[in-house]
Amino acid sequence: MMNWNSTSIHDAARPDFGRQARKGVPEVIIAEHKTVEQSTEIAKRFLEATGRAILSRVPPELEACLREEFAGQADLEWLPVARAAVLRRSDARQPEPGGRVGIITAGTSDIPWAEEAALLCREMGCQVHTVSDVGVAGLHRLWEPLQRLLEEAQVDVLIVAAGMDGALPSVVSGLVDVPVIGLPTSVGYGMGGKGEAALLSMLQTCAPGMAVVNIDNGIGAGAIAGLIANRMAATRRGGG
Amino acid sequence: MMNWNSTSIHDAARPDFGRQARKGVPEVIIAEHKTVEQSTEIAKRFLEATGRAILSRVPPELEACLREEFAGQADLEWLPVARAAVLRRSDARQPEPGGRVGIITAGTSDIPWAEEAALLCREMGCQVHTVSDVGVAGLHRLWEPLQRLLEEAQVDVLIVAAGMDGALPSVVSGLVDVPVIGLPTSVGYGMGGKGEAALLSMLQTCAPGMAVVNIDNGIGAGAIAGLIANRMAATRRGGG
Amino acid sequence: MMNWNSTSIHDAARPDFGRQARKGVPEVIIAEHKTVEQSTEIAKRFLEATGRAILSRVPPELEACLREEFAGQADLEWLPVARAAVLRRSDARQPEPGGRVGIITAGTSDIPWAEEAALLCREMGCQVHTVSDVGVAGLHRLWEPLQRLLEEAQVDVLIVAAGMDGALPSVVSGLVDVPVIGLPTSVGYGMGGKGEAALLSMLQTCAPGMAVVNIDNGIGAGAIAGLIANRMAATRRGGG
Amino acid sequence: MMNWNSTSIHDAARPDFGRQARKGVPEVIIAEHKTVEQSTEIAKRFLEATGRAILSRVPPELEACLREEFAGQADLEWLPVARAAVLRRSDARQPEPGGRVGIITAGTSDIPWAEEAALLCREMGCQVHTVSDVGVAGLHRLWEPLQRLLEEAQVDVLIVAAGMDGALPSVVSGLVDVPVIGLPTSVGYGMGGKGEAALLSMLQTCAPGMAVVNIDNGIGAGAIAGLIANRMAATRRGGG
Amino acid sequence: MMNWNSTSIHDAARPDFGRQARKGVPEVIIAEHKTVEQSTEIAKRFLEATGRAILSRVPPELEACLREEFAGQADLEWLPVARAAVLRRSDARQPEPGGRVGIITAGTSDIPWAEEAALLCREMGCQVHTVSDVGVAGLHRLWEPLQRLLEEAQVDVLIVAAGMDGALPSVVSGLVDVPVIGLPTSVGYGMGGKGEAALLSMLQTCAPGMAVVNIDNGIGAGAIAGLIANRMAATRRGGG
Amino acid sequence: MMNWNSTSIHDAARPDFGRQARKGVPEVIIAEHKTVEQSTEIAKRFLEATGRAILSRVPPELEACLREEFAGQADLEWLPVARAAVLRRSDARQPEPGGRVGIITAGTSDIPWAEEAALLCREMGCQVHTVSDVGVAGLHRLWEPLQRLLEEAQVDVLIVAAGMDGALPSVVSGLVDVPVIGLPTSVGYGMGGKGEAALLSMLQTCAPGMAVVNIDNGIGAGAIAGLIANRMAATRRGGG
Amino acid sequence: MMNWNSTSIHDAARPDFGRQARKGVPEVIIAEHKTVEQSTEIAKRFLEATGRAILSRVPPELEACLREEFAGQADLEWLPVARAAVLRRSDARQPEPGGRVGIITAGTSDIPWAEEAALLCREMGCQVHTVSDVGVAGLHRLWEPLQRLLEEAQVDVLIVAAGMDGALPSVVSGLVDVPVIGLPTSVGYGMGGKGEAALLSMLQTCAPGMAVVNIDNGIGAGAIAGLIANRMAATRRGGG
Amino acid sequence: MMNWNSTSIHDAARPDFGRQARKGVPEVIIAEHKTVEQSTEIAKRFLEATGRAILSRVPPELEACLREEFAGQADLEWLPVARAAVLRRSDARQPEPGGRVGIITAGTSDIPWAEEAALLCREMGCQVHTVSDVGVAGLHRLWEPLQRLLEEAQVDVLIVAAGMDGALPSVVSGLVDVPVIGLPTSVGYGMGGKGEAALLSMLQTCAPGMAVVNIDNGIGAGAIAGLIANRMAATRRGGG
Repeated sequence: MMNWNSTSIHDAARPDFGRQARKGVPEVIIAEHKTVEQSTEIAKRFLEATGRAILSRVPPELEACLREEFAGQADLEWLPVARAAVLRRSDARQPEPGGRVGIITAGTSDIPWAEEAALLCREMGCQVHTVSDVGVAGLHRLWEPLQRLLEEAQVDVLIVAAGMDGALPSVVSGLVDVPVIGLPTSVGYGMGGKGEAALLSMLQTCAPGMAVVNIDNGIGAGAIAGLIANRMAATRRGGG
Repeated sequence: MMNWNSTSIHDAARPDFGRQARKGVPEVIIAEHKTVEQSTEIAKRFLEATGRAILSRVPPELEACLREEFAGQADLEWLPVARAAVLRRSDARQPEPGGRVGIITAGTSDIPWAEEAALLCREMGCQVHTVSDVGVAGLHRLWEPLQRLLEEAQVDVLIVAAGMDGALPSVVSGLVDVPVIGLPTSVGYGMGGKGEAALLSMLQTCAPGMAVVNIDNGIGAGAIAGLIANRMAATRRGGG
Repeated sequence: MMNWNSTSIHDAARPDFGRQARKGVPEVIIAEHKTVEQSTEIAKRFLEATGRAILSRVPPELEACLREEFAGQADLEWLPVARAAVLRRSDARQPEPGGRVGIITAGTSDIPWAEEAALLCREMGCQVHTVSDVGVAGLHRLWEPLQRLLEEAQVDVLIVAAGMDGALPSVVSGLVDVPVIGLPTSVGYGMGGKGEAALLSMLQTCAPGMAVVNIDNGIGAGAIAGLIANRMAATRRGGG
Repeated sequence: MMNWNSTSIHDAARPDFGRQARKGVPEVIIAEHKTVEQSTEIAKRFLEATGRAILSRVPPELEACLREEFAGQADLEWLPVARAAVLRRSDARQPEPGGRVGIITAGTSDIPWAEEAALLCREMGCQVHTVSDVGVAGLHRLWEPLQRLLEEAQVDVLIVAAGMDGALPSVVSGLVDVPVIGLPTSVGYGMGGKGEAALLSMLQTCAPGMAVVNIDNGIGAGAIAGLIANRMAATRRGGG
Repeated sequence: MMNWNSTSIHDAARPDFGRQARKGVPEVIIAEHKTVEQSTEIAKRFLEATGRAILSRVPPELEACLREEFAGQADLEWLPVARAAVLRRSDARQPEPGGRVGIITAGTSDIPWAEEAALLCREMGCQVHTVSDVGVAGLHRLWEPLQRLLEEAQVDVLIVAAGMDGALPSVVSGLVDVPVIGLPTSVGYGMGGKGEAALLSMLQTCAPGMAVVNIDNGIGAGAIAGLIANRMAATRRGGG
Repeated sequence: MMNWNSTSIHDAARPDFGRQARKGVPEVIIAEHKTVEQSTEIAKRFLEATGRAILSRVPPELEACLREEFAGQADLEWLPVARAAVLRRSDARQPEPGGRVGIITAGTSDIPWAEEAALLCREMGCQVHTVSDVGVAGLHRLWEPLQRLLEEAQVDVLIVAAGMDGALPSVVSGLVDVPVIGLPTSVGYGMGGKGEAALLSMLQTCAPGMAVVNIDNGIGAGAIAGLIANRMAATRRGGG
Repeated sequence: MMNWNSTSIHDAARPDFGRQARKGVPEVIIAEHKTVEQSTEIAKRFLEATGRAILSRVPPELEACLREEFAGQADLEWLPVARAAVLRRSDARQPEPGGRVGIITAGTSDIPWAEEAALLCREMGCQVHTVSDVGVAGLHRLWEPLQRLLEEAQVDVLIVAAGMDGALPSVVSGLVDVPVIGLPTSVGYGMGGKGEAALLSMLQTCAPGMAVVNIDNGIGAGAIAGLIANRMAATRRGGG
Repeated sequence: MMNWNSTSIHDAARPDFGRQARKGVPEVIIAEHKTVEQSTEIAKRFLEATGRAILSRVPPELEACLREEFAGQADLEWLPVARAAVLRRSDARQPEPGGRVGIITAGTSDIPWAEEAALLCREMGCQVHTVSDVGVAGLHRLWEPLQRLLEEAQVDVLIVAAGMDGALPSVVSGLVDVPVIGLPTSVGYGMGGKGEAALLSMLQTCAPGMAVVNIDNGIGAGAIAGLIANRMAATRRGGG
């Protein structure tokens, strides 16, 4: 497929089909640094081996290619804001462990990465509850929906996404008794405006009970949150 | 509107219509990290709730969309250098507290962000007086217009915008007895040339009486300058 | 106590005695940026209010002061490598939720911060199991103790501490199905050697299911790990 | 005084005795980068010319020297936490413009720099009101004292000092309608822990109406806050 | 050719035709920072002087120009993933010293730069053996192909390419007794995601026996690996 | 011309027509951060006031506009590699002080900025002598042309441009007794590859007698070199 | 030995006694981040298991402790400039593979780390040839000793140590046909002066055939150079 | 002298006695990264070979050693603020080319490095004229002494030293027609406070005719300024 020299001992891609079983987290094809041909080929192999392929950071050319290539063979779920896709064979069955994940965003602009996290959590069989645009510029907007996440939805873990000052996750973590995953986003301007200010502020949090993932790493936030929530759910079902 | 999953408890955007009343500063829709659909929708809600919507960092597609979407419903004021817009319903009335703000730029290239600041100050009801291209490469150009800002216009506060060496705000702050807001801009080249040199130089100022906002944050500079000036004006009117 | 001017409305320190109840995590007095007098005073207040005070980053002068000040009034547990202390009144009782935390270090030099994490987890009532010096320079040392943590100790969560290349947390996270908290340490040399390389490598992990805390933030790693483990334990006891 | 070569046209130090009159802000002798001899000499000249000398960042050797050198000639006010000093001749009179400044700190460790700011404001003739240790790890501690600053003390401007995550100034700025000066402090650990995280978070604030000074620059924060407050006060007295 | 002023003493480019003889490494034309005209002209001179021209980082316009310009005069070998080219006159003969180089990549996305390295090694007359997508997220994929590289192919040196966490080279270097050249790639996201995390992690390796080249510098990795391997081969043939 | 609000006291641009007389260096219009309209307007004013306008970093749209706008009114000298332009009225006369400047580049890719420097020196009336592609990868190429610059051309000052490792200026400065201006360029890759490595290496030079300008600042390098050379020339003519 | 909690499954240090056999490189005890007790204990175990212990970055207290603790039990070789030590039992025998390593330093100040490298190479059984203070400020000092290293000593590999501008390794690598290991040192001042300029310049080298280790990592440079040289020697003896 | 292994081909230090003749700049022994023994030994050799030795960054132990070691053999000139020394044999004669150098400092704290520059210029035989504490916080202090430097002293070149905001060199360079060497100093606080803000601001200067040296590099500033001034002087004497 790739122009990889004939002296190669093995092929270029070795998809990790067993990751879901071994880790409890499915492999996601991050299309950003791959050619359209590479991503499509790897998606095809996942679809064959596991009945499903998850792709994130999908450029327009790849989106078109996926729609054409897999038409009639698999259902395509498309998330336009996150530019992520799930291909699913009609016969694919997913276990539903039932972890409960809450996701909060500081602003409307943080949604693409919050959606990446939500996607992965749902694909891991979690229930996902989301609240957005409740940042610290107007904290009065936060209390009521936060209360509902904790008391009605009874979430096992919270993902809090924020760009710019990155202050919301610290504020939330100071108020709740569930673990918080801070998800800094590349929303901002000027110095520290590619998410560095948000990331550093979260790393420096004075509110205990929070850990962070890298800037814009919605998939990573979803993976650890889903893992925590599903282990809680397994214990609830008596399997912990 | 957005592809935000159905398990969401709330919608994606929660505009802060009460900010002007609570803070004395209206909310500005920074379009840079939002989709055209998101920005338009939020503008629509502001227009309905407050009679006005202010947008900055407007990309060409959004400009076109605004012109089409709101034709006949609202007046569009368009600032081509700053790429900012104000939509206003004909029945909208704005209070005019009357703070006096002076804005100085070191070079012609700093104008886009100075204009953002001027826009916000005017929308807050301030009188705005501007002087541009009086940087330290030729200080002789500075004295006369600075004198006029202080003595004729009697400004309450000064915004000084500069990129490159960022030296002008320190020079001005060493000469005047009004508070100075330093506005570093992303004008420059090579190391420190995205505004970092200007920002750091202003943060290190040896002239007391200056505080700074982030690189290219004309809106932020306008907000604090307008707030200071309008409080002065309120006191002048006997309301402080 | 401090030379804080008489116009102050309130005193200088407002200890958060209710944090353990509200958050499930006790407040820790980080002595690093405080004077000996400040730290001792705050410890005294905690001892009175809650029967216990936890101090980290204790400089030698403060250690001496604590030993003298609280002699006969409280037991002092001292951790010489981490330079941390727990003061406990004899009548203090701690709930024992029983979460199970595993802690792994890449090298001997990472122990001070791993010990900080262990201390906080134990004070939160967790069982703590530790393994050290199993870094990637000799991966053969890792398998057997990792197996014992997972199968014998059945830990709910793993903290993996590493300085230098920071590679161990990614390797561990690729192998296990429990959530992993990466704890980068300031062990290293040259570029990136104050823990930045380790932190960045963990933030960039290609193994899903890991989140990180800041460099040398053993207390923070312990807080979130203890929170996760104790919620698992509560669910096991039927309270989740 | 200094070993400055005989070909020098002028002496080494040119104190700016007229700064208070010209700028409304007195010059402060920052002792950090000067020799004991230089600082003492400059203090002597200020005392002669203006009846007062203000020194910050005073090392122990200089403190001893000041106490000895000026005994009987001037009163020494000493701030031990900030390590700052004011020398005052008994006949010195200071105008009292009467601006009202509020100062808030996120933690006990931020006090040294908050005290620097308070010192300068008081020397500028302002009334200073302070509140400390009300950071976002326990936001419930903030409301009541903030209310008192705004309603009882009716401050003209707020300085909010914070290290670590730097979140408090954004939270406060989202709630109040007075200008806020963010004062980041070098309290923290690991990446961004010398105050960079706090500074960047404040530069990226999503709450309008705030500007910042550099890390640990209490003198700078006091200067601009005092300037704003005193201009308000002058207007109140009818002189604006 | 270039608009280089007439007072120039010499022409703009001085190709180093003797480098292969002097250094054992041929010169590569890095097209990234050159105009199409410059690159084509230099390639022409190399082809004339040495019978071969190697170009890397070839933009599409240059690729088209090379295909047209040299049609019929030289064979063009084109590597689409690396975007590299070798032009060869039919009469060109290359010595074949026979060093043995192994190249491993952590992920599929690292292949472009691994291919650059492979290209240069082959042009230096080495045998190249490659293995890809065996990163630390699933270490079980590594053992068998690594064994084959060491025992079957008996490589003299290993290049290990990795982006993101950059952990694979350290893991490999901890296991083998051949020199390892770490090749960090610009694959990643967020902080450290342009290859800085990978580079720093490799520079901080705790496994001895590894040195590194710059991010994406496949040519540089190939040059030193080829040099080491060919000297081994020369010694094997009795010429060392 | 620009959408600059009507309350402006002055216009947006204040060209410094007297700079050549005052400084000995003409003002250059750096078009990079200006709109086409701004650059054209400023060029027009310079042409009227001084008979000449110099523009650097000219984008294609501006090039087209200049060609059309000034056709028949002024001669346009165009440097395609540097993308710089000189507009000159036929009656313009330039003094020719006759300083002698040598310019050396490490590689072909450094030529655009070397050409900027050469352009400014020539416009200042210097004789310019250039040598290119003599970097440290093959130092044997350096000796002969360097000798000619020093002995035949007898240059008063040397500009040495280099990207990547930035080693050439230090090597040259160790060999010659004329002042050297280091001009780092943004040629490189990976860490430090936007010219930072070159700039830092020059700032750290162990060879005395060199100062530097910012990355890609050919105009700045030309300005100081021309100033030095022309003062030498004036002294030679007896006017120093 | 350390205050490591009793729930530990294993002890704190797991020395890698088999590293020499597995890797061809002995483990070095880097004392910098360890307590005196930890370092002494690990040295004791190495001495028992392998007859030798190598320690680098030895602080004065540890030096004293080693001299006292091992007196009469082992010979202590002490390198005062590098502050490194080798403890050796009288019955210890070391194989002598006989690789030939050349080490060059740019300045006298680079010697501590060059000596670390030389120490490790000698302990690996290499012949080491050194040349110092031949940096680019006076290149005429370089030619003759470089010639002797290549022709008389016939080194298999060169380590070139340089701080400040880091230019020497690139210059050397442009001249020789043996692999070069660049060793940047923390000698310098101002920006980039902790070795960053030197490291970046080496990473950006335009001379092919060089790879680098981290700043001040003399041990790492010695390890890879010794590995390369000893493999060459093995091949010379017919074992490659 | 140093513990440098017996296989060394040459000694550890190779002083460049001919540098003054070849470069016009004498070699300075920077004692900062050398042992007392190394610095003393090198000073001895310079004294023997050239009759003079110049040392900068002299720590107290070395100062004591120099005073003792060379008592009676050479005169010691000691600069206490710069901590620099010149040893001179009574029979040493220095040529006096007579270049004229002006040195300006922004603050009193910048004097140590300005003095380093002055020292080297005087040792190169220049006349040095200095002005200090005329920074931009009070520009009115600048005009008169600057005028005297230009008109009375008729300096050939200006060194302008500044820390903090680094604005003074740009202001001066905008006013004068002599070449300006910017000398940033490590005077400052918080972000950019180790001289980075000053250096970056100078690199970004908008006033043409300035080049810079690294932070605190007074020796480097003196070297290039002395070189420029002495060449002017040589031309004045008819030798240029």
